[in-house]
Amino acid sequence: MPKLDLEAILQTNQTGYPAPFNAEVAGRWYRRLGPASGLTQMGVSHVVLKPGAWSSHRHWHDDEDEFVVILSGEAELVDDTGVHLLRAGDCASFPAGQPNGHHLRNVSDEPCILIAVGAGNRDGGGGYSDIDIMFSGDAYFHKDGTPYAADRIP
Amino acid sequence: MPKLDLEAILQTNQTGYPAPFNAEVAGRWYRRLGPASGLTQMGVSHVVLKPGAWSSHRHWHDDEDEFVVILSGEAELVDDTGVHLLRAGDCASFPAGQPNGHHLRNVSDEPCILIAVGAGNRDGGGGYSDIDIMFSGDAYFHKDGTPYAADRIP
Repeated sequence: MPKLDLEAILQTNQTGYPAPFNAEVAGRWYRRLGPASGLTQMGVSHVVLKPGAWSSHRHWHDDEDEFVVILSGEAELVDDTGVHLLRAGDCASFPAGQPNGHHLRNVSDEPCILIAVGAGNRDGGGGYSDIDIMFSGDAYFHKDGTPYAADRIP
Repeated sequence: MPKLDLEAILQTNQTGYPAPFNAEVAGRWYRRLGPASGLTQMGVSHVVLKPGAWSSHRHWHDDEDEFVVILSGEAELVDDTGVHLLRAGDCASFPAGQPNGHHLRNVSDEPCILIAVGAGNRDGGGGYSDIDIMFSGDAYFHKDGTPYAADRIP
């Protein structure tokens, strides 16, 4: 059935971020729509950012495109160029290989609901702008190359 | 700039469909967000279906995933299983290689705005359920293999 029953798809706030970097995404509740609906060429997440929650720490992917569209509520998109308010219907693209660390922050009092899509090499690498993490596949590393014990969830 | 200025991106109702199959998509106005924003791993279209417009004829892709989310208004999703109403926030997935011909029809009196994403082999093939067309890359064929003169817009 192509039309998705969102309520029937597991919603989780799971994260692979090692402490203390997990705190900011505790209010990020998401459903992985791709595996639930048979998609193999892209990842699609339905995300609810509760007030105060971040979508991630500011990061980029070396070889994966990302795209987001806001369905309801609002969020601040923070990247190397500044802070940009996104409201319902607003879209943002993050091309693979552009090391412009980005994330969304819900600084409002209402939930922000969005769709996030990723395509490309899901086992690839990338980095974080503001914290001592790099990633490759399901592994996190310090910027000196020392691995973290935590497993990333690609 | 990751945040997209939709108004600055060309909106078109261009189609490669050979007549008479172009009539149903004349009221489909879309912006190709991927090329406009540097995405190379996925195609993303911002689509306005005016009242009466179809998103396409019922079709499927052999090796490309498709995903749609409705931003405003409503549309009927028609596939081999029947007719399913999609409203704002509703999502649908069309996995690569599942020959379940699908399309959206705006049978309401208001525009329907949606985001459509495709990822996988954009030069691949597929077919149409209700009309005498198959496609591969930028070419259309009759089901007996005879080419159409019209070029497809992948």
